[in-house]
Amino acid sequence: MNQGKNIKKKIFNDPVLGFITISDSLILKLIEHPYFQRLKRISQTGLTYYVYPGSTHTRFLHALGATHLMQLTLQVLKQKGVKISKDEERAASVAILLHDIGHGPFSHALESTLMDNIHHESLSITFMNLLNNEYNGELSLALEIFRDKYPRKFFHQLISSQIDLDRLDYLKRDSFFTGVSEGNINSERIITMMNVVHDELVIDEKGIYSIEQYLTSRLFMYWQVYFHKTSVTAEVYLIQALKRAKDLIKDCKKIPSTSTLSYFLNKSDFSQLNAEDIMYFSRLDDTDIITALKDWQFVDDEILKILSQSIIQRKLPFSRISSHPKSDEEIRKLKSKVEEKYNLKDGKYFVHQNKLNIFLYEGKMQAIKLLLKTGEIVKLQDLGNPVFNNESNKYICRYHLCFPRDIL
Amino acid sequence: MNQGKNIKKKIFNDPVLGFITISDSLILKLIEHPYFQRLKRISQTGLTYYVYPGSTHTRFLHALGATHLMQLTLQVLKQKGVKISKDEERAASVAILLHDIGHGPFSHALESTLMDNIHHESLSITFMNLLNNEYNGELSLALEIFRDKYPRKFFHQLISSQIDLDRLDYLKRDSFFTGVSEGNINSERIITMMNVVHDELVIDEKGIYSIEQYLTSRLFMYWQVYFHKTSVTAEVYLIQALKRAKDLIKDCKKIPSTSTLSYFLNKSDFSQLNAEDIMYFSRLDDTDIITALKDWQFVDDEILKILSQSIIQRKLPFSRISSHPKSDEEIRKLKSKVEEKYNLKDGKYFVHQNKLNIFLYEGKMQAIKLLLKTGEIVKLQDLGNPVFNNESNKYICRYHLCFPRDIL
Amino acid sequence: MNQGKNIKKKIFNDPVLGFITISDSLILKLIEHPYFQRLKRISQTGLTYYVYPGSTHTRFLHALGATHLMQLTLQVLKQKGVKISKDEERAASVAILLHDIGHGPFSHALESTLMDNIHHESLSITFMNLLNNEYNGELSLALEIFRDKYPRKFFHQLISSQIDLDRLDYLKRDSFFTGVSEGNINSERIITMMNVVHDELVIDEKGIYSIEQYLTSRLFMYWQVYFHKTSVTAEVYLIQALKRAKDLIKDCKKIPSTSTLSYFLNKSDFSQLNAEDIMYFSRLDDTDIITALKDWQFVDDEILKILSQSIIQRKLPFSRISSHPKSDEEIRKLKSKVEEKYNLKDGKYFVHQNKLNIFLYEGKMQAIKLLLKTGEIVKLQDLGNPVFNNESNKYICRYHLCFPRDIL
Amino acid sequence: MNQGKNIKKKIFNDPVLGFITISDSLILKLIEHPYFQRLKRISQTGLTYYVYPGSTHTRFLHALGATHLMQLTLQVLKQKGVKISKDEERAASVAILLHDIGHGPFSHALESTLMDNIHHESLSITFMNLLNNEYNGELSLALEIFRDKYPRKFFHQLISSQIDLDRLDYLKRDSFFTGVSEGNINSERIITMMNVVHDELVIDEKGIYSIEQYLTSRLFMYWQVYFHKTSVTAEVYLIQALKRAKDLIKDCKKIPSTSTLSYFLNKSDFSQLNAEDIMYFSRLDDTDIITALKDWQFVDDEILKILSQSIIQRKLPFSRISSHPKSDEEIRKLKSKVEEKYNLKDGKYFVHQNKLNIFLYEGKMQAIKLLLKTGEIVKLQDLGNPVFNNESNKYICRYHLCFPRDIL
Repeated sequence: MNQGKNIKKKIFNDPVLGFITISDSLILKLIEHPYFQRLKRISQTGLTYYVYPGSTHTRFLHALGATHLMQLTLQVLKQKGVKISKDEERAASVAILLHDIGHGPFSHALESTLMDNIHHESLSITFMNLLNNEYNGELSLALEIFRDKYPRKFFHQLISSQIDLDRLDYLKRDSFFTGVSEGNINSERIITMMNVVHDELVIDEKGIYSIEQYLTSRLFMYWQVYFHKTSVTAEVYLIQALKRAKDLIKDCKKIPSTSTLSYFLNKSDFSQLNAEDIMYFSRLDDTDIITALKDWQFVDDEILKILSQSIIQRKLPFSRISSHPKSDEEIRKLKSKVEEKYNLKDGKYFVHQNKLNIFLYEGKMQAIKLLLKTGEIVKLQDLGNPVFNNESNKYICRYHLCFPRDIL
Repeated sequence: MNQGKNIKKKIFNDPVLGFITISDSLILKLIEHPYFQRLKRISQTGLTYYVYPGSTHTRFLHALGATHLMQLTLQVLKQKGVKISKDEERAASVAILLHDIGHGPFSHALESTLMDNIHHESLSITFMNLLNNEYNGELSLALEIFRDKYPRKFFHQLISSQIDLDRLDYLKRDSFFTGVSEGNINSERIITMMNVVHDELVIDEKGIYSIEQYLTSRLFMYWQVYFHKTSVTAEVYLIQALKRAKDLIKDCKKIPSTSTLSYFLNKSDFSQLNAEDIMYFSRLDDTDIITALKDWQFVDDEILKILSQSIIQRKLPFSRISSHPKSDEEIRKLKSKVEEKYNLKDGKYFVHQNKLNIFLYEGKMQAIKLLLKTGEIVKLQDLGNPVFNNESNKYICRYHLCFPRDIL
Repeated sequence: MNQGKNIKKKIFNDPVLGFITISDSLILKLIEHPYFQRLKRISQTGLTYYVYPGSTHTRFLHALGATHLMQLTLQVLKQKGVKISKDEERAASVAILLHDIGHGPFSHALESTLMDNIHHESLSITFMNLLNNEYNGELSLALEIFRDKYPRKFFHQLISSQIDLDRLDYLKRDSFFTGVSEGNINSERIITMMNVVHDELVIDEKGIYSIEQYLTSRLFMYWQVYFHKTSVTAEVYLIQALKRAKDLIKDCKKIPSTSTLSYFLNKSDFSQLNAEDIMYFSRLDDTDIITALKDWQFVDDEILKILSQSIIQRKLPFSRISSHPKSDEEIRKLKSKVEEKYNLKDGKYFVHQNKLNIFLYEGKMQAIKLLLKTGEIVKLQDLGNPVFNNESNKYICRYHLCFPRDIL
Repeated sequence: MNQGKNIKKKIFNDPVLGFITISDSLILKLIEHPYFQRLKRISQTGLTYYVYPGSTHTRFLHALGATHLMQLTLQVLKQKGVKISKDEERAASVAILLHDIGHGPFSHALESTLMDNIHHESLSITFMNLLNNEYNGELSLALEIFRDKYPRKFFHQLISSQIDLDRLDYLKRDSFFTGVSEGNINSERIITMMNVVHDELVIDEKGIYSIEQYLTSRLFMYWQVYFHKTSVTAEVYLIQALKRAKDLIKDCKKIPSTSTLSYFLNKSDFSQLNAEDIMYFSRLDDTDIITALKDWQFVDDEILKILSQSIIQRKLPFSRISSHPKSDEEIRKLKSKVEEKYNLKDGKYFVHQNKLNIFLYEGKMQAIKLLLKTGEIVKLQDLGNPVFNNESNKYICRYHLCFPRDIL
C-alpha cells in the first residue's frame, strides 16, 4: 500500500453493483481508449428494449461490471490461500475488461451478416493484439489467458465457462435493467463459493444450491428475455434488412448509409482481415445501423422499405415460438402467400423460421465441478440431482417463426 | 367493468415502477404512433451517461412512467372523494404521456441551437395538435389541460408544477439509473398525500416532511447529476460542434450529416413552423447527432474536428463549477490563449462559461400548498420552516467553465 | 365510489410490497383485534434469524402482505372478465388475512409439542369462528372459502394451493428479509398471469416460465433457508427443551415459566379444545417461549439447562444434512455416547435425526393448470417439460442429524 | 495473506449491506459471546414496528453492519495513504462492534426508568471492561478509542460524531426495514469521500452535496420515523407502565414479572453498579418487558392494567405533535379530566407532554470539516450554504402530547 499519497483511481457508479473502483493504470488507459469508448454506443441487449424498455444499458457498463467481479473473485481466492501474482491479477482483469471489445452492434447474428464468418471473439483477439502493440506487450499475459493458452486454467474459466464472470455480470445486469426481477442471480454468493484446486475452478460444496438456482435462472432469462419472440423478430427483420441492402448494392442500386456502414455493405470478403477492416470496424456501432434503417424507410425498394419501417416504427410481423417447427412445405406456402400479396419474386425476406437452442447445463465439455468437504471433486451431474444430471446435457430447442400479419 | 371478455391491454415492465398496465385504447394507439416511438431513440439524460454509465434510459420509458403515476394519482384523488370523469381521466393521461412528444435529441439547449427559439413545449403542442386532427378531436381536452386552459387547474398542476408527475417520475427514475441512490424520492408516498381543494392541487398536512425531503433531493440531483461538470461540459461542446457546423454551412462548406440533421443545419429561420419542419423534426433523434459527430471527427475543419473528437472519444476539456464567475476579461484571456495555441481567429468555440441556475423552492409563482387538518390551506413557505421560507425563493447560482487542458 | 367525503382507510408501509391500503371496515376491525395483534409477536421464520439475522419479520406483516396480494389478484381477475361480487372480495380478503390467525409461536412442530395433535389450520378455523360470532356472521363466507366449502374453488385455491397467495407473499418476503436475493420471486408477474376457467384457478400460457422459475426458487429457499441445518438444529433443540419441561412437570418438578406457557406445559389432553384452551392460546407468543428458555438456563435439571443454554447462547450442537440417513444402530450408538459422557439415562434429548421432505412440484393432488391460447387447459406436468413432469411428483428427502460436539 | 490454507471466517448475509465477512478471531469470539448474542433480542427501533411493521431488526444486525462499514472505511483511508496499523484496525472494529453492547431493551428513556441515571454508553464501557478482562487486555486499545482517549481522534470520530458509522449504518438500515425509502442515505458514497488530515476526520470537497443530503435525510427520518407520534406514544406509555410497576412495588404490591426484570423493578439505587447489577443487566432484553406487559393486562391495579392493555392490544391514546406546547395549566386540566373519568388520585400516568429535540446540524461542538482541493480545511457552516450555516446550529423543537381518547 503506497502510504502518504493519493493513488490515481476512478470510481464508477454502477446502479447494479454499486461503486466500481479502478486503480490499475493500464486498465484506466484501456478504458479511455477509443476502442473501449465505442462500447458506450453498443447496447448490451440489442433490440430487447422493444419488449423491456428499460433495457438500454451498454456493453461498456457490462465490461466494467465484469471487471469489478473479477477483482472481487481474486480477493476471495487469495483469502482462501490461492496464490495469485500482481501480474496475473492485472492480466485477468484486462482480459475480462476486453472480452467484448470486438463485439459489433446488435447481436452475434448481425456480425455474421456484415462480416461473413468472423466471430466476435476472434475480433476481440485482433483488437487485443493491436492494443498489445500500442502498450508495448503489457497485454501479453491477458491475451494468453483469454486464448486459454495459460497453464493456470482457472483464469480462463473465470472469463469463459458455464460460471464465468461474463455471465455472472450480464445475467444480473439484464435482470436489473429489464425489470425481470425473478431472473436475478446472486453473483456475490457464487463468487464467495468459488475455489481453485489444481489450478482449476471449483465450487465449494455448500454452493451447490446456488449453482442450481443460477442455472435455472439463466434458462428463465433465455425464455423470458433473450428469446422473447418480439425481440427475436425485430432482430430477424434487422438481419433481413441488412441482407437486402447488401443484395441491392450487389445489383448496383444506391442506398444511403453512413460511411462506416457503407464499407461493410460494399465489401464481401472478410476472410483475411486487414488494417482497413479493423479501422472501420472500430467505428461501427448501433447508431450506424439505426441511422441506416431510418433512412431506408424512404428508399424506393419496397422490400427494404417495409423491413426498415417495421423496425423503426415498431410495426412488427406476426411471430410465435413453438416446440414444433413448421415443415419446409408450410414455410414455402407462407412465402408464396407473401410473394403473391406483395407481388414479389422472393418472399424469403419476410418469412422466417429459426431454431433457438439453449443448454440448461452443459455437463460434457465443461462440467461444473464441486469441491466436497472431504476434498473430493465431483461433477455437478454426478451428484444424483434429478434436474442436473447427464440427461440435462442436451439442447432445449424451440422454433421461432415470423411472417407478415396480412397474409394470415 | 366489462365482464365476460378480455379487455385489450398492454403491460410494460418498468424496472423502476414495476408493471405499467395501459388499457385505454386511445393511449395504446398513441404509444404505437411513430411520433411516440421516436422517444425510444431520445435518451432522458443526454450525455449524463458519460459520468453515470447506467443512465441510458429513454424519454419513452419516462413518458410511460409518468402516465402510470397519473393513473395512480387519479385513483388516490377519487378515493378521497374528488370527482373525476372518464373523459378527464383519459385526457390527463394523454397530456402527461405526450408532455415530451416535442422533445428533441439531447437537452433543451440543443433545441435552441438547431431550431433557434423554439421551446420543446410549443413543439409538443404542435405534435398534439397534429395527433388531435389524426384522431378526430379525441385529444382536445388533453390539449386544454396541457395548455392550462382547463378550469380545473389541478389537472394541469399534475403535469406542470413544482410537484408535478413529470418530476415525480424523472427524479426517481434518474436516481435509479444513475445509481445515485440517495436522490431517490418516494413518489408513491407524495401521491398518497395529494388532495384537491377548489380544483387546486394541495398536499395533506402530514405530507410536509415528504415534500421537504423531495425538494432537497431534487436539489441534490441537480448538483450531483444534472449539473455534474463533466456532463455539462460534454453538452457545451456538443452545442459548439453544432454551431460550428451551421457556421461552416453558412460559409458554403460541405460537411457530412444525415438527411434529417442536414435539414436543420441548413435552415435558419424557424419562426413560422411549417409542415416540412415538423416532418423532419419527427425523424430527428440522438442517432442523427451522434452519427454526425462520428463523421465530423474526420472533416478537414480543425475546430469541428477537435470538438467532435473530444466528445466521441471522451477527451473532454478542463472544467470546473464554482460559485464565482470568471470576469469577462479573464474569459477573453483564455480565448486568446486558445487562439494562439491553436492558431485560430476565434477561441469562442473552446472556452465557455455559463450560469447554472436552480431554485431550491419557488414560492412566489407556484407555491406548494398544504391542507391542514383544520381545513385551512397554507403555503409551504408560511409554515415557519427554517429552510423553505420566503428567502428560499431565489435562484442558487453556480458557474460552469471549460477550456482546453493544454492552455493551462 | 363515494364522492365528496374521505373514506376511512389505513395505509401500511411494507418494505417488500410498498404501500398497503386497507379500506374495508371489517378488515380494519379484524386487524385491530387482539387476536390479530398477537401476530406481531410471532416471527414468520422462527429461529431462522440465527442464520440470517435480518429475518425477524412477523406473521402480522406477512398476513397484511398476503391480503394486499389478494386485492391485486381480484383486480386482475375482474379486468379479465371474471365476475366477483363485493361480498366475495371481502370474504377472500378476510380469509387470507386470517389464514395464520391460529399459528402458534415458532414452527408447526412446536404446536404439536405444546398441543399434541392440533394443526394450526384447525386453530385458525376455531379463531375465525369466534370472530364470526363476535361480528354477527360477517365472516361466514370467509370461513366457507377457507374451509373449501365454497363452490367457486378458485377463491380457496388463492388461499391454499401450490400457487396460493400465502406462498407468493412469504417466499418473496423471506427472500427480502434473509437477504437471499436469488430466491426472489416475482409475485406481481404471476398474479398478472392468473385467470379463472370454470371457477378454477389457471395460469395463462405465457406464464409458464414464471411458474417454473417460481417452483425452483421455492425449492432453493427450502435448501438455503427453511432447511438450513443451523436453524433446523435450533428448532430441534427448542422442541426437546419443551418436551423435557413437560416431562419434568409430569414428574412434579417445578420449573419457571410464564403463566400462559405454564398452562400448556401442565395440560396434556387437547383432543377437545375448550374456551380456556383458546383464551390461553390467544395469549401465547414467541416471548413466552424465549422467556422460559432464558430462565431455564439456570434450573437445576442438567438436560433442560444445557438445551436452553445452547439455544439462548447460540452454542449449537454439531449438525449436518445428508441424502442418506444414519441407521438406527448408529443413532443408538451416538445416544449411548451422550449418555456416558453426560451421565444420563436417556440421550434422546440430545441426539436427533429427522427427515426433511419437500416437493419440487406436486402434480397429482393439486396440479397447476395452464390455459393455452387455444382455450385448452393442460396440467403443467403434461407439457413435456424435462423438469416438471410426472416424475417430479415425489418428495425430495434429506436427513438432518444433530448431536453434541463433544462426543465427536 | 496466509497462502495455502483456509483462514477461519464467518460470512453474514445482511439484506441491507450484502455479505459481511468477519475474519478477525477476536471479533468472531466477541460475536459469539452471550453479551453480544443478547443484542439479538433487542430491537433496534423499539416500538416503531407499531407504525412500520417491517421494522423488527435488531441491534445485533446493526452492530455487525457498523463493523462492516468500519472495515470498508479503513480500506478507503489506507488507499488514500493514511497509515493504519493492524492493531488499530482491530481496535476500531471492536469498538464499533461493541458500541451498543450496554444498550438495554427499547429506548434510552427506558434505561433511565429502570436504572435511574445510567446512560447506555457508560454501560457499554462497563461491559467492554469486563470483556477486556476476560480476553486478557486485548480490548484495551478499543476502549481507549471508544472513550476518546486515543490521540488519533479520527478513530473515535468514526464511532461517535455527526458522520459516524453508527449513524451511517442505522439511518440506511432503518430506512430499509421501515420502507421509508426516501430516507435512504448512501453510506458507501460518504465513506468514499472520507479522509484524514492531522488525525482528524474530514470529507473531501466533492462530498459536500452528499453530506448535505445525508443531514436532511437524517432530519427526515426523525420526523417520519423516530418521532412518529404513534411510536413515541407507545414508548411513553411503556415508560409509564414501568414507573407504575415500580411505584406499586414500593407500596409492597405484588406484580408478576420475570426474575430478571424483577431485579430492576425492586432495586432503586444504581449509583454504584455492582457485579450483580451487571449480571442481571446482561440478561435483560425485550422479552422481559413484553412478557411483563402481557401479564400486567390482568393485574388488579387499574392503572397498570390500562397502560399494559393499551400497548399490547395497540389501543393507544390520542396523540399529536405540535410546534407549540400546551401550557402547564392545560396539562393540569387534562389530568383532572382523567382523574375524574377514571376515578384516580393522579392522572400523571395517562397525560403526557414531552419535548422532541433534534439538531439539523450541530456546528459548534462537532462541526463537519471539508478538505478543499486547495488543501484548506473548512467547516461546513462556513461555506456560505443557506441551510447549513451557523444558524442551523440549534435545536428544532416539537412537542408530543398524549392523553386518553375518552376525555376528548
